[in-house]
This record gives sequence, C-alpha cells and structure tokens, in this order.
Amino acid sequence: MRILVVNSNTTDSVTARIGTAARAAASPGTEIEAVTAPFGLPLIVSRADWLVAGPATLAALAARRGRYDAAVIACFGDPGLDAAKELLDVPVLGISEAAFHAAAMLGRRFGVVSFTAALRPMFEDCLAHHGLAPRCAGFRMGPPFSGDPGKVAEERADLLVELCRQSVEQDGAEAVILAGGPLAGLAPVLAPRVPVPLVDGTAAAVRLAEALVGLAPPAAKGRRRARALTGFAPEIASLYDG
Amino acid sequence: MRILVVNSNTTDSVTARIGTAARAAASPGTEIEAVTAPFGLPLIVSRADWLVAGPATLAALAARRGRYDAAVIACFGDPGLDAAKELLDVPVLGISEAAFHAAAMLGRRFGVVSFTAALRPMFEDCLAHHGLAPRCAGFRMGPPFSGDPGKVAEERADLLVELCRQSVEQDGAEAVILAGGPLAGLAPVLAPRVPVPLVDGTAAAVRLAEALVGLAPPAAKGRRRARALTGFAPEIASLYDG
Amino acid sequence: MRILVVNSNTTDSVTARIGTAARAAASPGTEIEAVTAPFGLPLIVSRADWLVAGPATLAALAARRGRYDAAVIACFGDPGLDAAKELLDVPVLGISEAAFHAAAMLGRRFGVVSFTAALRPMFEDCLAHHGLAPRCAGFRMGPPFSGDPGKVAEERADLLVELCRQSVEQDGAEAVILAGGPLAGLAPVLAPRVPVPLVDGTAAAVRLAEALVGLAPPAAKGRRRARALTGFAPEIASLYDG
Amino acid sequence: MRILVVNSNTTDSVTARIGTAARAAASPGTEIEAVTAPFGLPLIVSRADWLVAGPATLAALAARRGRYDAAVIACFGDPGLDAAKELLDVPVLGISEAAFHAAAMLGRRFGVVSFTAALRPMFEDCLAHHGLAPRCAGFRMGPPFSGDPGKVAEERADLLVELCRQSVEQDGAEAVILAGGPLAGLAPVLAPRVPVPLVDGTAAAVRLAEALVGLAPPAAKGRRRARALTGFAPEIASLYDG
Amino acid sequence: MRILVVNSNTTDSVTARIGTAARAAASPGTEIEAVTAPFGLPLIVSRADWLVAGPATLAALAARRGRYDAAVIACFGDPGLDAAKELLDVPVLGISEAAFHAAAMLGRRFGVVSFTAALRPMFEDCLAHHGLAPRCAGFRMGPPFSGDPGKVAEERADLLVELCRQSVEQDGAEAVILAGGPLAGLAPVLAPRVPVPLVDGTAAAVRLAEALVGLAPPAAKGRRRARALTGFAPEIASLYDG
Amino acid sequence: MRILVVNSNTTDSVTARIGTAARAAASPGTEIEAVTAPFGLPLIVSRADWLVAGPATLAALAARRGRYDAAVIACFGDPGLDAAKELLDVPVLGISEAAFHAAAMLGRRFGVVSFTAALRPMFEDCLAHHGLAPRCAGFRMGPPFSGDPGKVAEERADLLVELCRQSVEQDGAEAVILAGGPLAGLAPVLAPRVPVPLVDGTAAAVRLAEALVGLAPPAAKGRRRARALTGFAPEIASLYDG
Repeated sequence: MRILVVNSNTTDSVTARIGTAARAAASPGTEIEAVTAPFGLPLIVSRADWLVAGPATLAALAARRGRYDAAVIACFGDPGLDAAKELLDVPVLGISEAAFHAAAMLGRRFGVVSFTAALRPMFEDCLAHHGLAPRCAGFRMGPPFSGDPGKVAEERADLLVELCRQSVEQDGAEAVILAGGPLAGLAPVLAPRVPVPLVDGTAAAVRLAEALVGLAPPAAKGRRRARALTGFAPEIASLYDG
Repeated sequence: MRILVVNSNTTDSVTARIGTAARAAASPGTEIEAVTAPFGLPLIVSRADWLVAGPATLAALAARRGRYDAAVIACFGDPGLDAAKELLDVPVLGISEAAFHAAAMLGRRFGVVSFTAALRPMFEDCLAHHGLAPRCAGFRMGPPFSGDPGKVAEERADLLVELCRQSVEQDGAEAVILAGGPLAGLAPVLAPRVPVPLVDGTAAAVRLAEALVGLAPPAAKGRRRARALTGFAPEIASLYDG
Repeated sequence: MRILVVNSNTTDSVTARIGTAARAAASPGTEIEAVTAPFGLPLIVSRADWLVAGPATLAALAARRGRYDAAVIACFGDPGLDAAKELLDVPVLGISEAAFHAAAMLGRRFGVVSFTAALRPMFEDCLAHHGLAPRCAGFRMGPPFSGDPGKVAEERADLLVELCRQSVEQDGAEAVILAGGPLAGLAPVLAPRVPVPLVDGTAAAVRLAEALVGLAPPAAKGRRRARALTGFAPEIASLYDG
Repeated sequence: MRILVVNSNTTDSVTARIGTAARAAASPGTEIEAVTAPFGLPLIVSRADWLVAGPATLAALAARRGRYDAAVIACFGDPGLDAAKELLDVPVLGISEAAFHAAAMLGRRFGVVSFTAALRPMFEDCLAHHGLAPRCAGFRMGPPFSGDPGKVAEERADLLVELCRQSVEQDGAEAVILAGGPLAGLAPVLAPRVPVPLVDGTAAAVRLAEALVGLAPPAAKGRRRARALTGFAPEIASLYDG
Repeated sequence: MRILVVNSNTTDSVTARIGTAARAAASPGTEIEAVTAPFGLPLIVSRADWLVAGPATLAALAARRGRYDAAVIACFGDPGLDAAKELLDVPVLGISEAAFHAAAMLGRRFGVVSFTAALRPMFEDCLAHHGLAPRCAGFRMGPPFSGDPGKVAEERADLLVELCRQSVEQDGAEAVILAGGPLAGLAPVLAPRVPVPLVDGTAAAVRLAEALVGLAPPAAKGRRRARALTGFAPEIASLYDG
Repeated sequence: MRILVVNSNTTDSVTARIGTAARAAASPGTEIEAVTAPFGLPLIVSRADWLVAGPATLAALAARRGRYDAAVIACFGDPGLDAAKELLDVPVLGISEAAFHAAAMLGRRFGVVSFTAALRPMFEDCLAHHGLAPRCAGFRMGPPFSGDPGKVAEERADLLVELCRQSVEQDGAEAVILAGGPLAGLAPVLAPRVPVPLVDGTAAAVRLAEALVGLAPPAAKGRRRARALTGFAPEIASLYDG
C-alpha cells in the first residue's frame, strides 16, 4: 500500500519530521511518500493561511495522482480536505480529523494540546467542522511562537508535557492529542510522561488511512461531469477533468 | 460609501444580476461596484468548488483594495469569507452570512429555499459554520439543474414560490431565504406571493455592510507581520504584506 | 427615516445616554426619538423585571404608533421584543439581539462584558433565546452594583476595559459586546484601549434597524383578527385592534 | 396542602376544566383553588399573548399570596413562570414545564400533541427555554381553530388520538403530552386508545408541585431589597415589596 | 403507597442512610423498603462499576416484584434504570434522574457537587443521557476518596459546603445537587449554610416517584413476548417472562 | 495480530456470519477469533437486552484475556463497551462505534439503515453516546421482525437496498451504515447497488482495531486497585483483580 503524506506548508524540515513519524506508524508493507506543498506559506496558523494552503495541498495531491492508495493531509486544520475527498478516488484523511477520531476511540473525552495559542481559532473551527466537539475536554496551548517550526517540538517538549497534565487533571481528558504538523513524531517520546494515551495526528492518519483503504472500494464513487477550472496550475485543474 | 460586490463564479450574467440587485438595495449615496471572479468556475456547487472559489474571490478583493469601504462576497456559501475578514481592513460580509442574520432578525425561524438540491451540502456546512442552525426551520430545494445560471431565477420562479410556501406551512418558517447568487434580485418579485418576509442574500449583505461600516472603525485591527505567500497571483500575495 | 428608541426602564438619565448614543450611530437623514418607559422599574436586572418591562415597553411603542419606521428596544435582555415583532408593522430590534448579530459578523466568537454579574442570568437566557450561544466566547461581569444607573458607565470604565481584555486574552473573543442599556455610548470611548471591535448594542441596533427598513416591506405581514385585551392601558390594548 | 391553580386566560369554562383536572390528580389532603386571570385575553396562542398573560398571571398569584403552599400556572407556554419563581416564596410550576419533566421520566422521548398548529411557535420556544428539546420526538398539531376553547377537547378528541398514534408510530414517542390548558382532563379519557403514557400538564403540575413542597423549604430564599414598581395593579407591585 | 429503594452497591451502612433519607422525605402513608444490592461492589465509581451494578439492581427489583408501587434506584449514575423502566410495570426513578429534574424545576441552572472527582465521568455520562446538560452550571467535586462510604457525608461536610458556595458564586448555580448515594440525607443538614435550594437525589426520587404513581396507570404498558434469558439469577430471568 | 470478536447475543449462526465478515476485512497476518456470548439472549433489541448483554460480553472477553491484541464487540449498540475499555489493557471497539467513525471519515453525513425499527431507540442512544449525532443524516429501518437472526440479511436484502437509496436521495447521506450484527458481511454484497460507500460495522471495527493496536501502547494504562466483585462468574470478577 502506498500512502502520500502532504505537508501543507512549505517548510521542508517539517516535511522531514512528518515523513519520519508517518513511516514509524505505518504497517509493514506500507510505503510512505512525504511531500512538501509546492507553494504557499512556511507555517499555517490563521484562517486565511488555511484557505491558501488548500489549493497548495490539492496541487501536491494532483501532481502524484494515481501513484498512491490513500492520502494524508499533514497539517492540523486539514486544509483542502473536503475538496480532496470530493475530487480524488482514494481515501483522504486530515491529521486533525484522524486525531479526533482516534482519540475518541481511545477515551471518552480528549484534550487538545499544542505549542501556541495562535492556532486555537483554526483548531476550534476544525473541531466543530468534524462534529466531535461534544467529545473534547478542552484546549491547552502555549504562548506566542515565532521560531523555526522544524525545531519547536524539541524546544517546547517540557511545556507540552505540563499542558498534557493539566488537560488530564483539570479538564478530565482521557486521551490527549498533540496537535500541529510541527509536533509530528513527538507523541511516542512524551508518552511515558503522560498518564493517558497521547495521540499524534500523523501517526493516527497513517493507521486510519490503512484501515479505510480496505473498507472503501475505489469504485464506490460515480463519475463526475468534466468542468473547466481556470486560474490554477494545470494539475489542480486536472482534478476537474471528470 | 463604496461597496465592492464580488461574484465568486466566472459567469458575467450572474454578476450583472447581482449588481442590479445590490444597487436596488443600496441606500442613496452608496456606490456599488460588482465584479466577476477573475478565474475559477462558472458555478459554485460543491465543497471543492467552494475551496477554489476562495482564492478567486480574494484576487478580486485584492485587485481593488483601498477603493471600497466594505465588501460583499456574493456567492451563497461565502467562499473566502473568513480569510477576507482576516486580511482586509474593511468589513466583509458573505451573502449567506447576511441572509442568515437578516432572516433571524425578521422571524424566529427561517427557511432556506434554492433552485437545486445539489447545493444543500454546501449550504448546510455554511449554516453550521455561522452557528445559526438553531434558527433554521429547514431546507427546500429544487431538482438537479444544468442550464444557464443567469436564467435559472426566471425559469424556476413558480417552483421557488411553491417551495417557499412549503417552508412556511410545513416547516413553520417565519421568514424565507432565497439562496444562491443566481437568484439575486428575485425576492422582491416573488414577495407578493409569499406570506412571510423573503430575504435576498445580496440585498441583505449590502444593507448590513452599510450598517457595519458605521460600527467598526477601520483602525480597530492591529498590524500584522508581513509574510511571503508563494504560488498565487501578486494581488493575493499582497494581502500578506502586513 | 424615523427610529423610535425605547428605554425599557424608567430612569431618564439612562434614556438621555441612549438617545445620544443612538444619534451618534445613526446615518444622516435618520431621526431618533428616545423615550422612557411610561411605567415599570428604574433598572431591569432580573427575570421578573424583564417580564414587567415588557408591557411598559409595548406601551411606549404603542403610544407613538405610526410615527416611526423602525423601533429599538434599548434594554439588554430585549423585554417585549417578540411581542413587539408580532404586533407592529415595522421592524423592531432589541439591543442585545442587535449586539449579538453585529458582533457575530465582526468576529467568529464574541465576548459579553457588563458592569454587574447580577445581569448574567437574564443575559444568558437572552443569548440562548436568540440562538447565538455557539458564537459566544463567554461572559465577564463586574461585582454587585447599587448606584445610579446613569453614572455607572463612567464609574466602572477602567474595570470594563480590564474585563474586555480578559475576554480577548483568556476567552479568545474576537469582538466584545459592552452589554447593558446604562453603558450606551461607552464603546467608542473605550475602543482605543481594546484590541478587537467593541460593540455597543444601541449603536448596533440603530444601524441594523436602518438596514432592515430597506429589506422588509411594511406590507409583508398579513392582517390579524381583532381581539379584546383587558387590564392594560388603552394604547397597549390598541395593538390588538387587528 | 393548598395549591393555587391559575388559568392565565380569561375564559371561565377553561378554568372549570382545569380545576376539575387538578382535583382529580391531587393527593388526598391537597386542596385545589382554581382561579381565572383577572384580565388579559380569552385564549393564549401567540408570543404577544404570552407576554401580556404574564402580568395577568402574576396578579392572580399576588392576590392570594400567603394562602397557598404551591402554585401552578395552567397555560401551556408558562406565562409569567420565571418571574413568579423569583418573586414568590413557594414552589411555582408551569403546566408545560411539568409536562416536559413528567414525560421525560415516563419515556426516553416524548411527543407533543395539541389541537392547533397555531400554538407550535410558542410551544417550541417554551420547550427550548426548559432545555428539554433533546428529549422531544416532535410535535403533532391540528388545523386552525376559532371555536370555544372550553369545548375543543371534546370536539377534537378523535383527531387528537390520531395525532398521538402518529407521534408514537412515526416519531418514536415513548410518552405523549396532550398540550394546552383547554385540553386539561382529557388524558385519562383518551389513555385507553393510546399505547404509551399520556401526560396531562395540569395533572403533572399538581403532582409535581406536591412533590416539590416537601423538597424546597420556604426559608431557602433570601430576602430581596424592596423596589418600587409603577404602572401595575397594587397586588403586582406588592410582589416587589421585598 | 409502597416504594422500594434499592442501593445498587453492597454497603449496608449506605443502605441505612438511604433508607433514613427516603423515609424522611416520604409523604405520610408512603411505606419505604430500602434494600441492598444482593451482589456487586461496595462502591460504584467507574463506568465498569456502573455496568455490573445494573444486573445487581435488577436482581433486587425482581426479588420483590409485585410488592411495591414504584421503585427508586439509589445510586447516582442510575445503573440499570432504562432496563428497569422497560421490564417493570411500575414507575422506576434513578436518584440522579430525579435530582436533575427536581433541581431544574427549582432553579434555571443547577450545580452538581460531590465528594470525589473520581465520580465525574460517570456523572457526566449520566447527565448527558438524561438530556439536561443545558441546565447544568457545572460540577464541583472533592479529592480522591478511599475511606468508608457510610461515613464520607459527615467527614466531608465542610468541604461540601465550600463546593456548594463555589457552585453558586462562580458557576451561577440557582440550585445545587448533593450527588452520590453515600450523601443521602445530608442536604437538610447543610441547607442552612447554602443560599440556594440543596437537592438530595434520594429525597427527590421518593417525592417524584409518589407523583408519578398518580400519573402513570399500571396498565399503560403493553404485554411483552416472553423470552429466555440465560446466565443470570432466576429472578432476573423472570423479568423476561413477558 | 490477534483480534477477538465477540458476538454479544447467543445465536451461533450470527457468530458465524460475523466471523466470516471479520476475516474478510482483516489484513493479512491478522488472526480472527469469533466467539458467542456464553449466556444472555438470542437477539439484542431493547435497552434491557443491551444491559444484560454487557456482562455476557465481558465474560467472553475475560475468558480469553491475554490471548488477543484487540477486541471487537460485534453487537450494534456496543453492550459492555465502556466497561471493557476500562477493564482491559488492549483496545476494544464496538461495531457501532467503529461504523460511526468510519462512516464519518468516508462522508460528511452518514445514514443508518437496519432491518427493523425495533432497534431504533437503542441505536439512537448509542449514536448520542458516541457524540456523532451531528454527522448523522437520519435512520431508515424496516418493519417488525421475528424470524431467524442468522437469515435476515438475505431475506431483507432488497428492502435494505431500497432503504439505502432513500437515505442517500432523501436524507442526503454521503455514506450509509448497514447496522446490526446480523447484517455482518452484507455490505460488500449490496455495495454495487448503492451509490455511496456502504459501511459494515464488523469490517470497520476489525480495520480500526488493527489501526489502534499500533497507536496505543499496552503500557499506557496505570494499574488499578484490586476490588472484590461478587455475584458474577469468576472470569468477570477477575477483571477487577487490578
């Protein structure tokens, strides 16, 4: 099985982290290709960022179309996810979508922890969009951040452990999501210091994508009518070829 | 006061309808400029369409930046709305956002009527996003449509009246929204045949935009840090200049 | 355009504040008449107060019937609002209703700040009634108050700024409502000290009432059957004349 | 134990029905006094009616203050209920409040059946206000009604049985509320024809009021500060004496 | 009237407390029989405990079938409640169900206070199950507990008063539930120290059960088809005899 | 990887279906053991059935403890699920839980189709418990059923296809769950006749269980204090050994 993992921002060091985390989570026999969005922004933090990261993500998905059995959008907030689900013939999962579902299966109420509160509005919109707000015990986020997204996971590891503990002890979380593409791969490192399951969105998305490939046959979707999309790169427009 | 009205699809005949409806609703002294999205799709019906219509809408908004006091995104579903609110210094309203709020002020529960059920998933997501689902009495939509978006208002007028009546009598709607950019300007025509207020999103958005201009001083937003956005037209990237 | 603004309590100094704030917000050409409830209580703080302020508000609305194009009920909690909407042929808006809708258009989540926590139960009921609780980031209110309602705005200005800041920083509010008739006109004064849009219910109601007058033609409502209401002042009973 | 039952409309024949139903439901030793609102309207059907019925109900409650251990507001919609709970030292229950709680204890989901759809908006507001909408399986109501409220129960008995059956079979109701003051006493008559428990609001309110008298000691409420209410009958104003 | 009160845990000293509280709340002429679950666990604190307490509770109910007019499941969390409602011909109430409904009738928003936070997940599930979460102002619970359940009420009385005050002052509770079977009978003792009504689930359940006996005639339920249940004590299996 | 699949009812022919469906869905290398509940009822249709099926399911899980890496409770309604999650050291999934999550990942809104409406109340409770009601487009169920649970899938196949189509066309479902243990394995058979993904709970649970095994390390849970459970079979009591 081949899974394409798209980092929706343009920071290659984050893509590297994500690729490593994805490979660590994948089953034997699953091949992971991790790619960086071909354009856009170095970090996705706001609703506007989320919007422009959508076509950038679609471009990456379209460029390799036919060469993967499932895809993962590895940006917490899931830019382009609904469009990709409509336009592609294979299962597509966002890492926040996957994290919410996995956490809900691992505990009645899950907390969401991340490195900076700037992400909270986008994360709240995303949680509401997926309909799992009733299962969320609350958010715990760190202070403003303006450093290297590829290094924040290590720099803020102790803070994140403390936020996880607050989520468990004060909010009643029975599972905790470490949210944000730049934190990919951190969960197994911090897990021994947190008393409930720690969920990494990238790992969850890879495992759940493997699961869905077996469940949703590619032929399930009907053919679409071809339509002409202008103003976007040819590979994006090709998604509208029908 | 100058209000820019952006048709998020690329069909000029729809832009013409929208412009006419906007001017009819505007107060004396308000100047309306109606523009067509510079690229994208001729009709926005799906979640994927909604995503790609976002940057197209931003491009139109960015190209005239500084030349309007408020902006209206005249596509039911409000593509690009949250991004535009973040990136621009003037009030921006979507026609579905405006229709939901206006209808809620005109009746305890509002119905949503449109020409084709294909729009329903996008409309439901949009309603949920604006948080006004508790005030909605339900949707009533027509059959599949593949004709000219610029003519559907007249062609399906009788059907729409019948759907409005069902909304009032069976769903208990106390106001009804005629939803969809291609229906702009139809509400005043059909109003005499419907026993509750009929809301046109374009008209509502123009009136509410006029109202907001007086309420939200342009200086209220802080400066943003400049960031480099790649892969989009220069005018879109310029929105990230800070 | 003529807008009648009714202060639902009997304190003339509050009516004066409200009238000044309403005139400052009104468009050129809009004439504001601000009146005090002809009977009732000097301050509306509880659910019982809210109920008895309803007929008092209706009495003020009925006494000037036919002499205004829209009406504003200038008491946070909106006493008599639903009845007035049913009984009058012109748009009627409450200042809390207007504040909630305006704030929701100015920010994804809005905070509500007021001078005394005694108002919170009435405000929460009101928010739930308007269905916008999903958009509210939370309440921040001051300590008990027993002074002159006409002076509380100035006396508690610094406290209110502090509560606004807590709403933004701790609750994630992207717009803040300064709630309560006695705070009318304070928002523009405090706005420079708060980093997000500050919403004054009276100003919002005046602007939105201007907007609705253009949207809802007076003829939209059907005639009602005349009914005999006993035990209330003749002007209130006249609202049931059909 | 003495329970005052107030019919919030001015139709004595409805008061008689309510009094009979209340006495049939009361425990041995409970004394029922049923009174008609001293002023107001002959039938409460709209939100405006609901508002003016509030002070009328308070007047009836105030006139007999000190002569009852609990009170029931026998008008579906519960006019004046929150005010009465605040102002009186004894338990006060509305018949819709009581019906919703009793039905929720008798079945997981309850249906609401009444003689005319005109009541639906008021009933829906009332259900939402009490917070029990998640337990409601839906409304089933008859056509417009303009006859004698004192006779509608018998005239529409067969229709009501049919609506109850639809509620059970199509909506999944596990208990059904026969809603509306004019239907007082009908439930035991129709019960043999309906396969789930039928709830009469008046009966439920009397039984639950008896229950609450034993639970909430009169001394539980603190003293209030006296305040001057103008423009209402002296007995209403006396409720503000502190 | 005879009411069977079942303590779902196996601690006789708790049963004694519950029996005393039930008798203190019962009307003259009501006979209370309090019994201990015949098997199971000494204290019910987790979701697993809740499950196994269900058949234990059914066994106690089945063993005395036909010898009571209503039953109360005196364990906060209501183990076995839905099954008992289905299988028995008399009204059955859980003490959390009763407490939620009684508190909602005594105040717009109720707080929930208990001796240990370990109970919170089970209580939250229970509150959500009964659909009254919109009326709950929040939970306030004490630290871990591992002592004698029969003595915790007295040992933690001062802590509980403090938690009640926080619920009123910080959460806005207008009534407070003292939650947990081991706290039965404590509410009247602490009531003088708390400014809002204090609700004891056992007392509420007894009073409400008395109320329901008069409302729901035993014949209302249809006959069930007999089915063979294996693996449980004969008295439980007998509940499936039809 | 070894997955234990427990049929919570006592019908071996249903267990056989479930085992076949589970093996068909499992990845290469996954070993499925399908077992029948050692006691209980031949079909689980009511809330009471659900309760007694809980300990029966725990008994099956406990009897093979240590011999599987994950467990699936193969009864739509998920009896015993929360208890099993608490008491076992491996991931446990219910087939309704798995179906809801899988369907939500395959479509924005999912429909639920089953062979008999008798199951609806239990399914609705289950959906609400998992918090995914906002994603559900509605239920479509067949008429009463009293035949052989092992044969109902084939007997009602045409009816189920028709219900699936109604769910898609009238309710807007973008994925449909074929709900109920007795329908295990039917989804792939009917899939060619339904235009959206068809979800089989058993298959979904097996695939998602495989995914979770990789995500939640066995050591994540803390040790519990040993407690004495009486009145249940020794293997159930052993789950409380700590």
